[in-house]
Amino acid sequence: MTAAAVPIAVELLTIGDELLLGFTIDTNGPFLARALGEIGVRIARRTSVGDRAPEIAAAVRDALDRTGAVITTGGLGPTSDDLTKPTIAALFGREMLLDQAILEQMQERWRTRFQRPLPESNRQQAMLPAGARVLVNRHGSAPGVWLEDDRGRWVAMLPGVPGEMRGMTGDELVPLLRARGAGGGIVIRSTTVRTTGISESLLADLLAEMARGFPGLSLAYLPGYAGTDLRLTSESAAGPAADASLAAAAARLRERVGSYVYGEDDDDLAAVVLQLCRERGLRLAVAESCTGGLLGERLTSVPGSSDVFRGGVIAYHDDVKRVHLDVPEAMLRAHGAVSEPVARQMASAARTRFDATIGIAITGVAGPGGGSEEKPVGTTWIAIDLGGDNRAHRARFVGGRDEVRRRASQAALEMVRRAVSSEPQHAMP
Amino acid sequence: MTAAAVPIAVELLTIGDELLLGFTIDTNGPFLARALGEIGVRIARRTSVGDRAPEIAAAVRDALDRTGAVITTGGLGPTSDDLTKPTIAALFGREMLLDQAILEQMQERWRTRFQRPLPESNRQQAMLPAGARVLVNRHGSAPGVWLEDDRGRWVAMLPGVPGEMRGMTGDELVPLLRARGAGGGIVIRSTTVRTTGISESLLADLLAEMARGFPGLSLAYLPGYAGTDLRLTSESAAGPAADASLAAAAARLRERVGSYVYGEDDDDLAAVVLQLCRERGLRLAVAESCTGGLLGERLTSVPGSSDVFRGGVIAYHDDVKRVHLDVPEAMLRAHGAVSEPVARQMASAARTRFDATIGIAITGVAGPGGGSEEKPVGTTWIAIDLGGDNRAHRARFVGGRDEVRRRASQAALEMVRRAVSSEPQHAMP
Repeated sequence: MTAAAVPIAVELLTIGDELLLGFTIDTNGPFLARALGEIGVRIARRTSVGDRAPEIAAAVRDALDRTGAVITTGGLGPTSDDLTKPTIAALFGREMLLDQAILEQMQERWRTRFQRPLPESNRQQAMLPAGARVLVNRHGSAPGVWLEDDRGRWVAMLPGVPGEMRGMTGDELVPLLRARGAGGGIVIRSTTVRTTGISESLLADLLAEMARGFPGLSLAYLPGYAGTDLRLTSESAAGPAADASLAAAAARLRERVGSYVYGEDDDDLAAVVLQLCRERGLRLAVAESCTGGLLGERLTSVPGSSDVFRGGVIAYHDDVKRVHLDVPEAMLRAHGAVSEPVARQMASAARTRFDATIGIAITGVAGPGGGSEEKPVGTTWIAIDLGGDNRAHRARFVGGRDEVRRRASQAALEMVRRAVSSEPQHAMP
Repeated sequence: MTAAAVPIAVELLTIGDELLLGFTIDTNGPFLARALGEIGVRIARRTSVGDRAPEIAAAVRDALDRTGAVITTGGLGPTSDDLTKPTIAALFGREMLLDQAILEQMQERWRTRFQRPLPESNRQQAMLPAGARVLVNRHGSAPGVWLEDDRGRWVAMLPGVPGEMRGMTGDELVPLLRARGAGGGIVIRSTTVRTTGISESLLADLLAEMARGFPGLSLAYLPGYAGTDLRLTSESAAGPAADASLAAAAARLRERVGSYVYGEDDDDLAAVVLQLCRERGLRLAVAESCTGGLLGERLTSVPGSSDVFRGGVIAYHDDVKRVHLDVPEAMLRAHGAVSEPVARQMASAARTRFDATIGIAITGVAGPGGGSEEKPVGTTWIAIDLGGDNRAHRARFVGGRDEVRRRASQAALEMVRRAVSSEPQHAMP
């Protein structure tokens, strides 16, 4: 392997007290990791520090010593806790200078877009370290900054607002790194095989032997509410060869794990179900009680879902189940809203009332209140009605309200997937 | 300030290739930050490294040098990429030994809970560094580990699975740190004032002067799709005095920002709206087109929402708008589904058909397809019908499909909040 073929390793530094205090979930790091991985740039380490100049300076210095290449997010805004530019300028021994062109662009943007003069606090966004290169921000007011020293070590400073950071990564950072020969031909590629309904341990036992036979690939197990993902990763110079070995390994995993596999990579189970229905000319409708719209939300989060998904009823109150889903009052009294007959009736009514082929119903005890000895929190009935063929399953999902609801929506989609693809239904937790 | 009153600063190290490759959003860090903040333990730095022993070892060593106190998450599972325990044991010069008691507990757990013998791959979870203290895991199979050297420097190793990590933090880690006198009386307290409908820059201008007058408190601006949060933070020895100064500062912010404030701290706008409706005996129903259930999902994510929220219709297909919300065919043809009259009719039908006091309707172009010159992606009509008083607003939300839908749901809730609390409606973006 030649020196040029070594992948660029960069470190990512996210800046902001909010990241350390736990009030913000960082989605910038994952986005950058994926965007850079596609051009063969590997993130070797991620660090978060607070809005304090000494901590920012120390973290940037350490990261430059390790890799010579650092991307920061955050701390470019107009507020007084935004310290990134002056701190890193000082580290590089550069002055901060007002960039007249940027100031005018910002003034123009506020005039045309907000019909207001530029707020005073935004002026400091037009201050740049001497010798810096501007990373243009077409999605907001804070420009990004590329600063490099005479040894070729660099820091790219991006804003922390996700929409702006994402836009600038595509518009500016990725082209700039590509132009510098990022990756030197090394490409990081991953394939994920997504499973649901089987535990991480059982998967590990099932695959232990096989995993040792994937030379040059690593296999990771990633459990979550949607199931356990199996991720195969390759880092190598040859694109086509790596792709072929990833594809072969993924095919072997799929074969071994069988019907627990519902998709690959970013496949969401909702998108998989929509595609299966689309291919078969099936239309979906929902009747949601405890999930309150989550299943519809997941189905409609997939662009183009309108050719399969009709809509449905959020039947939160029992009156709604009665009036809009024809659940008889006597059935509710005799069995309760979380019961097999009610779930079956909801699925059937969703199908017929919304002119669908498949009705999907969820009714459960999401918690934290509402549980009983007979029906503890997490107890959920899921029913699907496929052209009159009505099936129901009882499950008990673990976790808090949010997790119970997410697991219920996933299990309902999995029931549809198995029904539509004629795979056997398996036991639920 | 005495030495004992200095807050313990710990570093957090999250371990796993998935965190660097960008396929996982880390929610463990934020959770730990909040749980530890409550006992006065501050996270000084967060670092993520991959599943490689040298990187784990280097990061733990650096963090121990800085703070002497490290919490790790991840790398305790049964799979071959789980390296945390042996790597840190080596760093501390300790052997790995089989803990017979843990092995038996795990065997028992699998027998009673899964009716299966312990998978071979789980056995390594019963291996512990010599001299380690076990952090009991009541929520899964991987025990945690507390390892300390003769200079009192320590590493607490927790699993990466969120449910297990959270349970163990409360059951084991927090009591252990408390017993060691964590925080020495110093408490980190925060109050967040939540705003929506006003930009970060305008807030910064509005508050610049005032913010300098909050001695001992820091003010951070946290913009997001739901609006901009204003977070006040205090780190001090005295609980009641800190609480009083935070409360006074928050009151001054609220007064200055006025009706753009919708809540404090973790208040979700959905919960605020539900509470306002509850106090006034109002019942809500929804009619959702482009949001596909998101608004219902947000309302029902609040425990106890059933006394206010009735349910509604997910009217994704235009047929559903016609049949279930009485939108005339001619109206759809003349104005299109994303239009003022359709939104108004949807809101009105949601109210009357679902026996509610307020109907809320959202119809928009969420994208990425479906936009036109007249109605570009992001164009959304929101209507509310409050006992026959029907109001509609047109907005154009920026961002991708997900962001447009989230912003639309937030704007709809804000319309209800203003209507119910008799505050003037303000312009939408």
